[in-house]
Amino acid sequence: MNMLATAFMNSSPFHGMPSGKLGSHTGNLLAHTMINTKHVSNWGLQYKAPTKVDAKKLGALDSNILDQEKEGPNMVSDLGLRKMIQDGFIFQEKVCIRYYEVGPDQTASVETVMNHLLETSVNHMKTIGLMHDGFGSEEMSKNNLTWVVAKTHMVVDRYPTWGDIVQIDTWKSAHGKNGVCCNLTFCDCKTGEILVRASSIWVMLNKNTRKLSKFPNMVRAKLEQCFVDTLPTVKEDTRTWSEEAENIYEHICKGLMPRWSDLDINQHVNHVKYIGLVIESVPKPIVENYEIHSLTLEYFRECTKDNVLQSLTSILGNDKGIIANVHFVDCHHLLQIGGGGGNIMKGRTRWRLKHSKSQGSGASVRSLANGSV
Amino acid sequence: MNMLATAFMNSSPFHGMPSGKLGSHTGNLLAHTMINTKHVSNWGLQYKAPTKVDAKKLGALDSNILDQEKEGPNMVSDLGLRKMIQDGFIFQEKVCIRYYEVGPDQTASVETVMNHLLETSVNHMKTIGLMHDGFGSEEMSKNNLTWVVAKTHMVVDRYPTWGDIVQIDTWKSAHGKNGVCCNLTFCDCKTGEILVRASSIWVMLNKNTRKLSKFPNMVRAKLEQCFVDTLPTVKEDTRTWSEEAENIYEHICKGLMPRWSDLDINQHVNHVKYIGLVIESVPKPIVENYEIHSLTLEYFRECTKDNVLQSLTSILGNDKGIIANVHFVDCHHLLQIGGGGGNIMKGRTRWRLKHSKSQGSGASVRSLANGSV
Repeated sequence: MNMLATAFMNSSPFHGMPSGKLGSHTGNLLAHTMINTKHVSNWGLQYKAPTKVDAKKLGALDSNILDQEKEGPNMVSDLGLRKMIQDGFIFQEKVCIRYYEVGPDQTASVETVMNHLLETSVNHMKTIGLMHDGFGSEEMSKNNLTWVVAKTHMVVDRYPTWGDIVQIDTWKSAHGKNGVCCNLTFCDCKTGEILVRASSIWVMLNKNTRKLSKFPNMVRAKLEQCFVDTLPTVKEDTRTWSEEAENIYEHICKGLMPRWSDLDINQHVNHVKYIGLVIESVPKPIVENYEIHSLTLEYFRECTKDNVLQSLTSILGNDKGIIANVHFVDCHHLLQIGGGGGNIMKGRTRWRLKHSKSQGSGASVRSLANGSV
Repeated sequence: MNMLATAFMNSSPFHGMPSGKLGSHTGNLLAHTMINTKHVSNWGLQYKAPTKVDAKKLGALDSNILDQEKEGPNMVSDLGLRKMIQDGFIFQEKVCIRYYEVGPDQTASVETVMNHLLETSVNHMKTIGLMHDGFGSEEMSKNNLTWVVAKTHMVVDRYPTWGDIVQIDTWKSAHGKNGVCCNLTFCDCKTGEILVRASSIWVMLNKNTRKLSKFPNMVRAKLEQCFVDTLPTVKEDTRTWSEEAENIYEHICKGLMPRWSDLDINQHVNHVKYIGLVIESVPKPIVENYEIHSLTLEYFRECTKDNVLQSLTSILGNDKGIIANVHFVDCHHLLQIGGGGGNIMKGRTRWRLKHSKSQGSGASVRSLANGSV
C-alpha cells in the first residue's frame, strides 16, 4: 500500500460528513462504542461517541448484539471468516493471532495490529468492488489511479496475545470530498472487550503524475452507497506541531536500510513497516517497559529499497532526558531519507507503562540524556 | 523460536526412524505425495517417495482423499480451521494468504511461507501437549528446557498469491534419538496442487546451560505416540561444503541491524527473519528475476537486538560473476555477527527464474563481478 499525505488533506476536517446510508443498521457498530467508553486518550485521540444515533433506541445495548449478523455480499475469497453485516455497511473479519505475530512480551506487536488494520480495510475495499488487483478498482486501473494511505490514527486499549481470536469490524465514511475514512475496531471474541480503535484516511494517487486525484464518478458512486454517517472511530488530532518541538529530536538512528522483505505489492516499502523503523530511534528503556497506547502517523512520500533512512524521536515533557516511572510517555517522530532526501513520515506516539511493570517497585528511573538508543 | 544446530545433529541421519504408529492411516499424507511426483530437485533436496507404505493398497489415490478426514483432539484455540486428522497423526490447518504477506510480484514471500511452517509446527506441538507457553511443555518448563529449530529444508513448487487458501498438513517423525522432524506440505485448496514441501528439525535446549538436552521421559512418550514412520517430506542435503567454497563469498552486505520487530517470544531474533537478512546480500538481478525454489538453512547460534550482522552470498558455478539467463542459480550463504562474533546461520538456496521472466527475450545477462548488491 502506498501512502501520502498532502496539503489538501488538512483542509478536510474529520467531521461534517455527507449524509450516509446507515439508518437504523448501526447495532453492531454502536455496540462496540457502548461496550467500552471509559477509555479516553488525553492526547488528542478521543474515542467516537455515539452522538448521531441513539444506540438505546436501536436496542444496540443487548449483549448478544455481536451475534445479530445479517449476511451481505461477499466477494473476497476467504475461509468463512469474512462477511458483510448490517445490510452491507459493516465488513467483519475474524483472525487468530499467530505465534509469529507476537513479540517478546507474548502480545501482538504494533506492526501486527497495523497489518490487520490494512488487511481488513483492503478486504473491505475488495468486497465493495474498489480493489480488484491490490491497487484499486478496474475503473481506477484504466485511469492509472491507485489508493494511498495518508494518515493513520490508532488507540490500543489492550494488545491481543498469541492464540486470541479477534473480530475486526470496519466501515467507511467520507473524509472531505476526495478522501475515505476507514474506521476499524478490534474486539476480543472471548470477552467482547474492544481492544483497538483505529481510522485511516485513504486518498487516490495518479500513478503517472504522482499527484492526488479526484474520485472517478463510478468510484464515488460506489463509495457513497457504503458510507456510514458517523463520527470516525478515532477523532483526528488536529493540533499543529510547533517548529520548536520539531527541531529537538534528541534520539536519532541513522543508516536504516529497507530490506527486500519490507517491499509490498507496490514495489515500495509498506507503510506499516514505518512504525517499526520509527521505534528504532525510541530509547530502549521505553521500548522495553512501555507499549504504544496511541499513535497518529502521517505519510508524506514513498520509500524504495535503495533509500537509506534515519529515524528521529523527541520525548515530550521530560526534564533533561530523565524518564521517571511515569504512566505515559509522549513522543514525536520523524522518518527521513538520509542526506536531505525529505520526510517520509511524521508521527506522534503515546506510550503506556506495561501492566506487569506498572505493578513493580517504581525503580525504573533511567537516564536518556546521552541520546543513545 | 530459538534455533541451534550442533554436532550431534550430524550424527543422526534422516532415515532409519524408529517404528512409528502410522499403520494404515496415511491416506491424506500419501495423497500429497502422489499428487505431484514429477518435481525433483537436482540440488540435494528430493521429495519423499512413498517407499514404506503402498498408497495404492490404502486407497490413497482417490482424488477425494483430502476430504476423508477423521477428527482428532483439538487443543488449540482456533476458528475451525485447525484439526487433527488420520487418527491424530496429521495436524491440518487452513490459511488465507493476506495482502501484507505478499511481495512485489503479488506472491507470498519466502518469509511468509516460513512463518506458516513455523506457525503450523508450533500449533501441532501445542495440540499434542508439547508447547503450553510458546517454549515447551509444562514438564519442559520445569526443567528449563525449550524447543529450538536446528535446520530447515524447503522446496517450493509455486508460491501462493494474495487471497489463495492453502491447506497445511504436518506430521512428526523421529530424527535420531533426540530430534524431531516436523514434516509439512502446503496444498492449494482450489487446485489440490502441492505448493511447498518442507521439514524442520527441532531439538531441545537447556535455557540455563544453553546446551542441548535429551528428551525428558514424558516428552519422549508423547512424541512416540504421534511419530509417523515415513521418510521426511524433504530429503536431507547431506553434502558437506568444501572449505574452498565457503571462503569465496563475493557478495557481502555489512551493518545489518536487527529491529525490535524482528524479536520473538524468546527475546531473540526469530529464525525466520534470517532468510530476509540472507537475501540482503543476494545480487539485485537475482532477487528481482528469480525466486527461491529450494533452501537448506542450518542455525548455529542465537542473535539479539544488539548484534550487528553481515550477510554473505556466494554464487555457485557462474563464470567470473556473469549470470546468463539460466533457469536456476545456486547460492551459498553465511549470516555472521560482525567483528568475528561467529556464524549464526549457514545456508544454501536454489533460485528459479520467475515464470513471467522465463518467457522473455533471454536478455537478462548481467554482470555481478563487482560484488555490489
